[in-house]
Amino acid sequence: MKILMIGTGGVGEAAAVIASKRDPKGSWLELMVLANRTLERAQKVSARIGDPRFPAEQVDGRNREEVKALIDKYQVDLLFNACDPSLNESLFDVAYECNIHYMDMALSLAVPHPTDPYNKTNIKMGDYQFAKHEDWEKKGLLALVGIGIDPGAVNVFARYAQKHFFDEIDEISIKDGGNLTAEGYDITFGFSIWTTIDECLNPPYKWEKDKGIYTVEPFSEPELFTFPDGIGEQELVNVEHEEMVMLPRYMGDAAKKMSFKYGLGSDFITMLKNLRALGLDDKHGTVKGTNLSPRDVVSMVAPNPVDVADKIKGKCCVGTQVTGKKDGLERKVFIYQTTDNEEIMARIGSGCVVGQTAFNPIMALELLAKGVWSGKGVLGPECFDPDPYIKLSDEYDYYMGVMEMESEYKKMLDKKALLSSMA
Amino acid sequence: MKILMIGTGGVGEAAAVIASKRDPKGSWLELMVLANRTLERAQKVSARIGDPRFPAEQVDGRNREEVKALIDKYQVDLLFNACDPSLNESLFDVAYECNIHYMDMALSLAVPHPTDPYNKTNIKMGDYQFAKHEDWEKKGLLALVGIGIDPGAVNVFARYAQKHFFDEIDEISIKDGGNLTAEGYDITFGFSIWTTIDECLNPPYKWEKDKGIYTVEPFSEPELFTFPDGIGEQELVNVEHEEMVMLPRYMGDAAKKMSFKYGLGSDFITMLKNLRALGLDDKHGTVKGTNLSPRDVVSMVAPNPVDVADKIKGKCCVGTQVTGKKDGLERKVFIYQTTDNEEIMARIGSGCVVGQTAFNPIMALELLAKGVWSGKGVLGPECFDPDPYIKLSDEYDYYMGVMEMESEYKKMLDKKALLSSMA
Repeated sequence: MKILMIGTGGVGEAAAVIASKRDPKGSWLELMVLANRTLERAQKVSARIGDPRFPAEQVDGRNREEVKALIDKYQVDLLFNACDPSLNESLFDVAYECNIHYMDMALSLAVPHPTDPYNKTNIKMGDYQFAKHEDWEKKGLLALVGIGIDPGAVNVFARYAQKHFFDEIDEISIKDGGNLTAEGYDITFGFSIWTTIDECLNPPYKWEKDKGIYTVEPFSEPELFTFPDGIGEQELVNVEHEEMVMLPRYMGDAAKKMSFKYGLGSDFITMLKNLRALGLDDKHGTVKGTNLSPRDVVSMVAPNPVDVADKIKGKCCVGTQVTGKKDGLERKVFIYQTTDNEEIMARIGSGCVVGQTAFNPIMALELLAKGVWSGKGVLGPECFDPDPYIKLSDEYDYYMGVMEMESEYKKMLDKKALLSSMA
Repeated sequence: MKILMIGTGGVGEAAAVIASKRDPKGSWLELMVLANRTLERAQKVSARIGDPRFPAEQVDGRNREEVKALIDKYQVDLLFNACDPSLNESLFDVAYECNIHYMDMALSLAVPHPTDPYNKTNIKMGDYQFAKHEDWEKKGLLALVGIGIDPGAVNVFARYAQKHFFDEIDEISIKDGGNLTAEGYDITFGFSIWTTIDECLNPPYKWEKDKGIYTVEPFSEPELFTFPDGIGEQELVNVEHEEMVMLPRYMGDAAKKMSFKYGLGSDFITMLKNLRALGLDDKHGTVKGTNLSPRDVVSMVAPNPVDVADKIKGKCCVGTQVTGKKDGLERKVFIYQTTDNEEIMARIGSGCVVGQTAFNPIMALELLAKGVWSGKGVLGPECFDPDPYIKLSDEYDYYMGVMEMESEYKKMLDKKALLSSMA
């Protein structure tokens, strides 16, 4: 498979490193063009990988003609969008126009309701892309959207839970947390600052079978959740996230309600509220004398997640908590992925959240290239068989596990584990 | 097997009920004489059971001749001591003199060091009994001591963990907790008040490989521990308990350190400290004009655990936490027994802590009667093969389970559980 990856920021770089290590002999990865707004950055990544299948190119992702020219030049099969999601609509359309497949790690952005954002939805995440599902289907093309860690792996987890762990699902709740700290920094962005602001300040979604998708106040419904691997208890709050539009679309018949909760920490929430109070979260207006929005400026000025990465200590953990019934017993599981910052730095030279995200598009690419996963239209990871994905994570040494949480079912398992261990 | 049970208090009654239900046709239980200080109480229990194998008798357990007369009358094989442990020494000796086996649920009592109780041990729990091990061995008799829930089942758990879950043990720590509350009572004793005061106000033991058994301050080293089955997090403190002399005696080569921690709650600790401050914990002096110690009076006056039992709500959970290594990975497990008060009341008409205790001597009796467990000398439950005991708990529908706690090993298991569930 020949791929044009646009964006060689943190995740793009990590994805390329993972891909070249995974398939050094090109059994399924023929080419991965590394295209970036600044050529220097793309060249740096290309040089680091030192593999002729990863050439560097300069491209302005917002300029459709430049992107099309690269697609033509390399005759690629798939455009892999590794940019901020603000470029999603444009790159998604270019791939369609050029008759190639498309992949990204987050959906097209939401536009909150202009006057009543916490009671009414307006343009939701992914609306732009999902509206074109049938067009893609007709052309026999696949747009695999939202294949990072969350959204992405967590969607696979939801499907996997449905397939193997439950007869009946009550709630699917995505939980995103960690215990990252950066020496010398009071506030740490583990991920794209721009995206973090976006998902944290927009009205969060929830979903219920009878109500459909609805919005609630940012940072609402705080709950305590204990993450595994020594991360421990964290306060999680509602945050806008793609899963809340993706999962109901494909799995809405399987569950009664869905939520996404993020462990931000109160210091971080205060900081975000201050940004909003100061108008620094604005992504539409431009700062006088520039063509940058205030939020663009924040992204540029604040410590860059890529630069801070080697000063960060701790882990991040993202997973899917599912509650429901199995064999007539109440059950609760948390299927999760944990990444340790120091370990992932040593392994691929990328930080925790970035590395944790980047494994997923490459695993998906491998499944698509090998024909294990296939599909037509605009689909999320929840639309595919989760088994080969989970199996592949083991081959990538990308840790995934399932934690049985307290329930009638776990009590039964604890008993079984005790009794069977003497066998 | 023919048994003389002395003491038809809460645990004695529950034990008799469990035994008669378990073996209604007398396949191993030929006779269980119910002897008690007050005949009325023994008759009440006998009538409730309504089984001619359970005759009622009056006996003063402190009067050796009376006990011997009953042993003679019924030609019993075993004396089952279901009294307060203050009778242990006497009943233990009577059984020996009469050439029959003996069983109790707690060791002979400690006498703290008269001047330096928190730095020096003096007469420890069980010293009186264990000193006579060889005498019993020579006679070919068994004294199975400390076979309740803790000590008792938890000792079996320690052995089971060593046998099946670890290559190498660092620490064995018994944890005793619950979330019992009694409507209309501010303070609840779930168990014999006399024993509770004794174990809570004496200097607690700990054990380390290099130091042996040593004493620490009561209520010292508070730690937070999360019990399963919805009980949740509790503060546990050091409390004097039999396991800290039993386990090192037989399993001292297997571990580096051992501790016993009890979840008392701060209200309960304050109440105990008040009793001590007022001299009401004293078990040696007598209250003027009576032959009762102040502690006896407290036991008589305070709400009786048997009477309060049907007003109690909640669960108690006791288990053995073991940390160490398995297959080169750090591992931590909690093998536990949980009993729900309402469930056990409905099932055997006894409260939580009482019912939780009473299953264990009956299970042990069955194993002894059937020859599955056998031994000579003064032995604790940790000296026997744990497997048939764990297996039998399932036949008794007496819930036991193992909870994998956070560790490298659990992470490996979580991964395996995820991967294998698609098979």
